[in-house]
Amino acid sequence: MEIGVLGTGAVGAAIGAKLAQLGHQVKMGSRDAGNVKATAWAAQAGANASVGTFSDAAAFGKILFNCTSGQGALSALNLAGSANLKGKLLIDVSNPLDFSKGMPPTLTVCNTDSLGEQIQRSYPEAKVVKTLNTVNAFLMVEPSKLAGDHSMFLCGNDEGAKGQAREILTSWFGWKDVIDLGDITNARGTEMILPLWVRLYGHFKSPNFNFQIVR
Amino acid sequence: MEIGVLGTGAVGAAIGAKLAQLGHQVKMGSRDAGNVKATAWAAQAGANASVGTFSDAAAFGKILFNCTSGQGALSALNLAGSANLKGKLLIDVSNPLDFSKGMPPTLTVCNTDSLGEQIQRSYPEAKVVKTLNTVNAFLMVEPSKLAGDHSMFLCGNDEGAKGQAREILTSWFGWKDVIDLGDITNARGTEMILPLWVRLYGHFKSPNFNFQIVR
Repeated sequence: MEIGVLGTGAVGAAIGAKLAQLGHQVKMGSRDAGNVKATAWAAQAGANASVGTFSDAAAFGKILFNCTSGQGALSALNLAGSANLKGKLLIDVSNPLDFSKGMPPTLTVCNTDSLGEQIQRSYPEAKVVKTLNTVNAFLMVEPSKLAGDHSMFLCGNDEGAKGQAREILTSWFGWKDVIDLGDITNARGTEMILPLWVRLYGHFKSPNFNFQIVR
Repeated sequence: MEIGVLGTGAVGAAIGAKLAQLGHQVKMGSRDAGNVKATAWAAQAGANASVGTFSDAAAFGKILFNCTSGQGALSALNLAGSANLKGKLLIDVSNPLDFSKGMPPTLTVCNTDSLGEQIQRSYPEAKVVKTLNTVNAFLMVEPSKLAGDHSMFLCGNDEGAKGQAREILTSWFGWKDVIDLGDITNARGTEMILPLWVRLYGHFKSPNFNFQIVR
């Protein structure tokens, strides 16, 4: 399948590489079609990988992953263009983290709203599913790196899109415990565990951990 | 040991009953010394249990548990009196949840501050340790109700008080995986997972779950 990955950071690179390895055609989008990180990623990811602008990647993909930094997400999607998002599953992996005021980071939106909701409101014809934002990039696409069971959350307003996202998580990436929290307002909850995630990262001195919901 | 439990809700009742059952002298404090819920609790909890005002309970306890609702915490501690909190371990179990605007609840403080920090700032001579606020009352004192490993967080500024709190969690209540996140600013992180907790409660239709940090 053709898939557009928006963002050239560790998250975009890990997800894009995994998708290309699974045999999908992946275009990584960025602000600048000649982005050095995207070009380096494509050279490593092989024949299934290509690069372009946010708009190129969004037009190319039948499914889209928003892997931009939280603070760049809305402007990146604006460059991607609403016509290119329309009717598509848009998996939103971004977190509204603000590191500009030092550590620990704060969230630019939380409690009564979330970045996932802002994106869905801005692009009502996209089918936003918030997921994968609660783990490190490497765990996202290879949950078996951690021994034992651990959980992945998803939420969104479109049941069909959530089913498609669940299939990607389970069949493509190998997640076993995927918890559908409900509509996109649940993005508040999953984005708001990031402050704890960041502290746990500091505590363990490793990002190789995840939450399991024991029940 | 003499222990003061502030608050007559499900959390205060469960913690107070467990402590009395372990042989400690427990005084449950409330706004009104003749509080009906406190009196009913004491009748059930047996000879080790007594009731009084917030001030009575705080004066009585060598260790204190703040089990008030988040929105009532600071006024309850004000009634308890700073002289009665001075130098004592104050285990803060409260969460700044606001249900007044309907479901899902929001937090009255988050992101750049927390209730745990507000309490520590208000009573600098108390040794505030934030813990137990991320699970249901019954799990707090009986973590073995859930099969398998699961985690409890603690944070605070005083190392001695955290050691004492850890001993209560492990030796008295039976917690096995207790994670010390660091200073009291980490209360932001643990309080901010409550929105997800509330959604998971709705999803599972049971409060009998917890987060395990798989690593």
